[in-house]
Amino acid sequence: MAAPMAASASLQHFRVTAPAPSVAHVEINRPAKLNAFFEPMWLELRAVFAALSTDPDVRVVVLSGAGDRAFTAGLDVQAASQASPALGPPGVKPLDGARTAARIRRHVTEFQDCVSAVERCEKPVICVLHGISYGLAIDLACCADVRICAADARLAVKEVDIGLAADIGTLSRLPKAVGSASWVKDVCLSARVFGADEAQAVGFVSQVHPHKAAAVGAAVAWAALVADKSPVAVQGTKEILNHARDHPVTESLRYTTIWNAANLQSDDIQAALLSGLKKTRPTFEKL
Amino acid sequence: MAAPMAASASLQHFRVTAPAPSVAHVEINRPAKLNAFFEPMWLELRAVFAALSTDPDVRVVVLSGAGDRAFTAGLDVQAASQASPALGPPGVKPLDGARTAARIRRHVTEFQDCVSAVERCEKPVICVLHGISYGLAIDLACCADVRICAADARLAVKEVDIGLAADIGTLSRLPKAVGSASWVKDVCLSARVFGADEAQAVGFVSQVHPHKAAAVGAAVAWAALVADKSPVAVQGTKEILNHARDHPVTESLRYTTIWNAANLQSDDIQAALLSGLKKTRPTFEKL
Amino acid sequence: MAAPMAASASLQHFRVTAPAPSVAHVEINRPAKLNAFFEPMWLELRAVFAALSTDPDVRVVVLSGAGDRAFTAGLDVQAASQASPALGPPGVKPLDGARTAARIRRHVTEFQDCVSAVERCEKPVICVLHGISYGLAIDLACCADVRICAADARLAVKEVDIGLAADIGTLSRLPKAVGSASWVKDVCLSARVFGADEAQAVGFVSQVHPHKAAAVGAAVAWAALVADKSPVAVQGTKEILNHARDHPVTESLRYTTIWNAANLQSDDIQAALLSGLKKTRPTFEKL
Amino acid sequence: MAAPMAASASLQHFRVTAPAPSVAHVEINRPAKLNAFFEPMWLELRAVFAALSTDPDVRVVVLSGAGDRAFTAGLDVQAASQASPALGPPGVKPLDGARTAARIRRHVTEFQDCVSAVERCEKPVICVLHGISYGLAIDLACCADVRICAADARLAVKEVDIGLAADIGTLSRLPKAVGSASWVKDVCLSARVFGADEAQAVGFVSQVHPHKAAAVGAAVAWAALVADKSPVAVQGTKEILNHARDHPVTESLRYTTIWNAANLQSDDIQAALLSGLKKTRPTFEKL
Amino acid sequence: MAAPMAASASLQHFRVTAPAPSVAHVEINRPAKLNAFFEPMWLELRAVFAALSTDPDVRVVVLSGAGDRAFTAGLDVQAASQASPALGPPGVKPLDGARTAARIRRHVTEFQDCVSAVERCEKPVICVLHGISYGLAIDLACCADVRICAADARLAVKEVDIGLAADIGTLSRLPKAVGSASWVKDVCLSARVFGADEAQAVGFVSQVHPHKAAAVGAAVAWAALVADKSPVAVQGTKEILNHARDHPVTESLRYTTIWNAANLQSDDIQAALLSGLKKTRPTFEKL
Amino acid sequence: MAAPMAASASLQHFRVTAPAPSVAHVEINRPAKLNAFFEPMWLELRAVFAALSTDPDVRVVVLSGAGDRAFTAGLDVQAASQASPALGPPGVKPLDGARTAARIRRHVTEFQDCVSAVERCEKPVICVLHGISYGLAIDLACCADVRICAADARLAVKEVDIGLAADIGTLSRLPKAVGSASWVKDVCLSARVFGADEAQAVGFVSQVHPHKAAAVGAAVAWAALVADKSPVAVQGTKEILNHARDHPVTESLRYTTIWNAANLQSDDIQAALLSGLKKTRPTFEKL
Repeated sequence: MAAPMAASASLQHFRVTAPAPSVAHVEINRPAKLNAFFEPMWLELRAVFAALSTDPDVRVVVLSGAGDRAFTAGLDVQAASQASPALGPPGVKPLDGARTAARIRRHVTEFQDCVSAVERCEKPVICVLHGISYGLAIDLACCADVRICAADARLAVKEVDIGLAADIGTLSRLPKAVGSASWVKDVCLSARVFGADEAQAVGFVSQVHPHKAAAVGAAVAWAALVADKSPVAVQGTKEILNHARDHPVTESLRYTTIWNAANLQSDDIQAALLSGLKKTRPTFEKL
Repeated sequence: MAAPMAASASLQHFRVTAPAPSVAHVEINRPAKLNAFFEPMWLELRAVFAALSTDPDVRVVVLSGAGDRAFTAGLDVQAASQASPALGPPGVKPLDGARTAARIRRHVTEFQDCVSAVERCEKPVICVLHGISYGLAIDLACCADVRICAADARLAVKEVDIGLAADIGTLSRLPKAVGSASWVKDVCLSARVFGADEAQAVGFVSQVHPHKAAAVGAAVAWAALVADKSPVAVQGTKEILNHARDHPVTESLRYTTIWNAANLQSDDIQAALLSGLKKTRPTFEKL
Repeated sequence: MAAPMAASASLQHFRVTAPAPSVAHVEINRPAKLNAFFEPMWLELRAVFAALSTDPDVRVVVLSGAGDRAFTAGLDVQAASQASPALGPPGVKPLDGARTAARIRRHVTEFQDCVSAVERCEKPVICVLHGISYGLAIDLACCADVRICAADARLAVKEVDIGLAADIGTLSRLPKAVGSASWVKDVCLSARVFGADEAQAVGFVSQVHPHKAAAVGAAVAWAALVADKSPVAVQGTKEILNHARDHPVTESLRYTTIWNAANLQSDDIQAALLSGLKKTRPTFEKL
Repeated sequence: MAAPMAASASLQHFRVTAPAPSVAHVEINRPAKLNAFFEPMWLELRAVFAALSTDPDVRVVVLSGAGDRAFTAGLDVQAASQASPALGPPGVKPLDGARTAARIRRHVTEFQDCVSAVERCEKPVICVLHGISYGLAIDLACCADVRICAADARLAVKEVDIGLAADIGTLSRLPKAVGSASWVKDVCLSARVFGADEAQAVGFVSQVHPHKAAAVGAAVAWAALVADKSPVAVQGTKEILNHARDHPVTESLRYTTIWNAANLQSDDIQAALLSGLKKTRPTFEKL
Repeated sequence: MAAPMAASASLQHFRVTAPAPSVAHVEINRPAKLNAFFEPMWLELRAVFAALSTDPDVRVVVLSGAGDRAFTAGLDVQAASQASPALGPPGVKPLDGARTAARIRRHVTEFQDCVSAVERCEKPVICVLHGISYGLAIDLACCADVRICAADARLAVKEVDIGLAADIGTLSRLPKAVGSASWVKDVCLSARVFGADEAQAVGFVSQVHPHKAAAVGAAVAWAALVADKSPVAVQGTKEILNHARDHPVTESLRYTTIWNAANLQSDDIQAALLSGLKKTRPTFEKL
Repeated sequence: MAAPMAASASLQHFRVTAPAPSVAHVEINRPAKLNAFFEPMWLELRAVFAALSTDPDVRVVVLSGAGDRAFTAGLDVQAASQASPALGPPGVKPLDGARTAARIRRHVTEFQDCVSAVERCEKPVICVLHGISYGLAIDLACCADVRICAADARLAVKEVDIGLAADIGTLSRLPKAVGSASWVKDVCLSARVFGADEAQAVGFVSQVHPHKAAAVGAAVAWAALVADKSPVAVQGTKEILNHARDHPVTESLRYTTIWNAANLQSDDIQAALLSGLKKTRPTFEKL
């Protein structure tokens, strides 16, 4: 898996490694600041996931934070306030409300687009939440396909506490990731911290492991398992499930049909069936 | 919080009190009849919540029933059957099916609109279910943002047992409030009574307290906590989450952006950040 | 309940019995092959459920597999591969990709339509999962209204393991049947087997019984309970809940109003109210 | 038609007359100011159309301006600027951008709701555009079902010229009322005045008459013709066409079915068929 | 084109001929009754178009009425009233409103499904309107892809005159087939007859020919022209345009992409490009 | 307008000039090849319109072809076939159908995204069609806001003639740009050439001018007129109209409200009102 490794060399804020064949592990790499985000980081995040999305050597992605203290503490508020699109640069005649709104609109749209790159990635992404996981941590985790966590994870939809409604995706995606609307409203309105067990009880995460290392190990094992399967089947499954979330069943069924009209024309079905009969492990061409 | 108190003076079927700063507590106030509803009650319910929605002195609303026996036993069937739009007044030549349908349509539309006032209320509503909570109890609870209950709550989607499909909102909102479609179909088709623990296990309520007083206390405490936060942030979070429930993620993200293009232009962000640095408690202007 | 019994006489792959008044029990009847499906079976499935949908003598349907080993092992891969629309008959000049796609498209559309007949059935369907329940088992169960299972059930969204994204409905319906998106992605991408307790914990099934006989007994009891209620109320509840899953709340409320404008004009309401007062058991006309 | 006449007695800004049986003629009645609107007018407009919507003596509504000079010149900018929600009252500490936005949002929502009352009216509305017809004139006309005009009509989507995007409905409804998107963008972006012939050529109006009196006469004649038909058929047709505009065809077909499941149970069909055979003029019960 | 000819032999109410290679001409064949429809006719209509949809020997379909007097006079009211689902058979205790509604609902759903078979047909359908073209004539024409007419065509959305809102598709499809909403409301509410020129002016038909023979000739010529083109391209174009009508642009673009991911894998592109270079006429495989 | 001029210096396939204040004129600049497109051109097109979208010195954009012979002849088929994603590079083992589909999917998605940049541009775009305007010409024109043409324009949705369904936007946008569905199906299925008068008659273009120079002159004059107006009003109008095309009216009204909650907080309204009173020409800040 030369490509992501090489790409990793030039990355400033992320580390990309290959813990298993066809598996890429992306780490948010600013542990000294609890992996808090500032603008160049989310721009780089988009570039990393755009590259992984079409990299034929990668079939599954693991996402975690570097270091033991935090997945991410969220937005680096200090850095953000210095470049706030709403407040504008000091000493300049302020814009009127409409022009300020245009500036904010472009800024938020861009920020959302960067984070959504995790969801747009054609390969499954499994996210490991650990330690402090506030604000943007939840936005990011909601873009992943599978979420697991370490027992020490402390999670919060924190934005209300800094005076704003979360706008990078949590409020859009969390209600569709978790079954209890009452719980979603509770944590989003109160900004309270919740732990790993509560996250599992409501279905936000699907596994809890005793510590970060165990959780990352489990994520890599899951990724390796899925990376061994037909990439046509795996990537189609992700695509159709994401489409299903946002469409009525009849629309989803039709889209599935059109999708599979091409994707059933793969050599993988024959390979999978044969290896099933022969009890061998099939290999699948890159995608 | 003079306004709702004053308003309360003229209310017939509800009591509105102010158990904490910026918190209004609305009680369904017909305990002798298990808080069962008849038409003037739902008209008054709409008026109460419309007033609270734009009352700048109110930031969070608690909803419960008066008395210890019931949140509400639902529709007062006796009263309703006397004024049934389907059956029409006795002794008058009956309308044909189409004209009867028009009458029912207007009646149900109006009834739904009154109950939906709880959802339309711009402030968060936390609902305390306790004792008998049948039929309309579930319609109302589904319009609230957060649902908690007392251990003695006995809940049921009761309408099938009086020969009709529930039409005031439960069938529209419950499937989006709870993650298990199988459970939703079970309780809606069988009309069986379920208790507090089952309600919590499926995520319909997010807390269970030993008795009504404890549940109301917890609701008021939650309300007071949220009432202390930026109302711009809190009310925006409610709005965006309600929008998200009914829209695909891309639509929701765009709506959030447009919403925040105005709402990030608030003084609350600066106030919240400063008080975060100074470890003081911020105050926010009314909204 | 003569009608389904008679119909049953001519069935090849299903058995239809009447375990209680107005209750039909449909069994997938190919136990020697673990109830695995091939094309004539899903065509017959559609015919069975289309008949039950409008049979006035049937009010609730129970669906299970025949025999103790499996609800269904899914698609009979051997049979399917011989008639694969993608691979085409041997010895004939292969079609180009577009023409192959048209053939697949028609085939998958037809297959989906047959399985969706379970969802389209106007009467509630309670599905009993037991033993091996792979692939098509999940597609079918997702079309049912209520899902319960036996403790020995071994479930899997198996399609990825044969090289394709599931296209008969699981990926469209499962995300809306279960609250945890992380869990849904996990089982659909990994194709791993999960058991009854896990199925209940995430809300996929709403009851677990110690063995198949107990589960079928519970399903029949539930069916008998619901079959005693107003069929206007019951069938309207199913219709509105299915509509609600796929529409925003405002759309759902409006549809409910229009639906009930006709359906409140039933004699069942009066019958239910009277028997409620008289403590008698109401009877309702056929529908 | 006593009801609207009586109601008219207390109206300040509108005149309601009964030019033909079951036909109400609503005139915007501020000719000295070119029928320009200020807030009490749109509140009264909503009241008038809400009353007509359920008045059983009214079956079709004609809408025009009083006087010969204008249908309406639109918003009375002078009056509006004095009560501008965006600018706020003079001498008071200005609100921040978020709180100003909340005020605007409530104001625009209310204003839209008042104008939409014309569309919500259950009876068909035929609108006669004549003379100056700017800004709000187009918003109103787009809410009507049928639009005709006098040759002297001078029409414009004028809002861009006062520095804002039209927000009372024109931009939402005009693209669905007229087939040429290029023309819609042209007139909305340039705010240019266009005449009766151009309005007819693009399909915005469906008739042009030489002068206002002729246009009103034609509208009343059309209204009288439609008022003679089954109100169940007429009002159902309006409802289904409005629903169709905003839904896919499959949704629309289903809604039509549910609507007609009640509305085919009318005596009007028999009456219409019999009178068709007998060559007599049928009469229909009120609705 | 043996297949449709053969099929035609057993048809009762339609005639299917092959006026040009790969072109099928379907005629409504009950000229003595102005081609008026009764139930067996729409069931046969569905069978005819379902067969043509997948008949590889047919690439374009022409639809017209037999005889010179009518395309179709619409529903045969006399026949329909004898089998009215709303009125029920004489002498039997009438059903209540809810049960009557269920009967109507199933009836209308089936009727709509039969007529929609024209739209579902995978091949383009060009419809020739001529003579009396009332009621069902418009429902049918709206399902066709291209509409042309003879100068003698007399068209009307006639349902309001028999006391009901049209429910077989006109109200759902006409607003999306024609650009002037005012005109659509006019003709649907007034049930007035309009002629060929008016139909062309509003875009309902795209050609007018002096008499039926000329119109049929033009339709066959158009059909032959299109039948010579790549069926992959032609049928894909129909499918994507029908999808586009009912979806936002972003949805439509995505669907188009997935559709063409398979359909660009056809030999037709190479064939078309080569024949373009060589100035020869390409031939395309059946689809 | 220094910015676009400077940018223009480095452009390979487009020329950008400033014919009037705040107006940018973009010309497709490959006249020797009839402005036919190959991949680097659409990538550059996206870059040009992305830059114009946020360039504060540009308020309206004019789009035309360079030279007198063609707006654009569409895709340069020769260039495209050499890099065809479907056919793949010669001499390499061909991919299976699923993997080929993935390649096509990415390619078409990228191509669509480039052309959609014209629609995403926040400023109005007026497109001048002239001479040969085939295939991609229609895709591009459909992304513009206003379309006008020269009398010599020869237009065609040409894709069917090269064996494929158009997939870069015409089939998605044309049905929403023009009112006659019959005409849209005719030109898309037959690929026939149509002229300026026909384009105007169906509403595809809103003006026809005698020759290209006159058409470009008219476009620049329109652009200059609109560029003088409030950019907050103009850009908001474009945004809301594009949103309205793809949403139901209630959604559109709500979005408009939220949009204007920020955008009514502009200085432009005061400026426009004052200059209206003073009969002066207002100036508006950049946006």
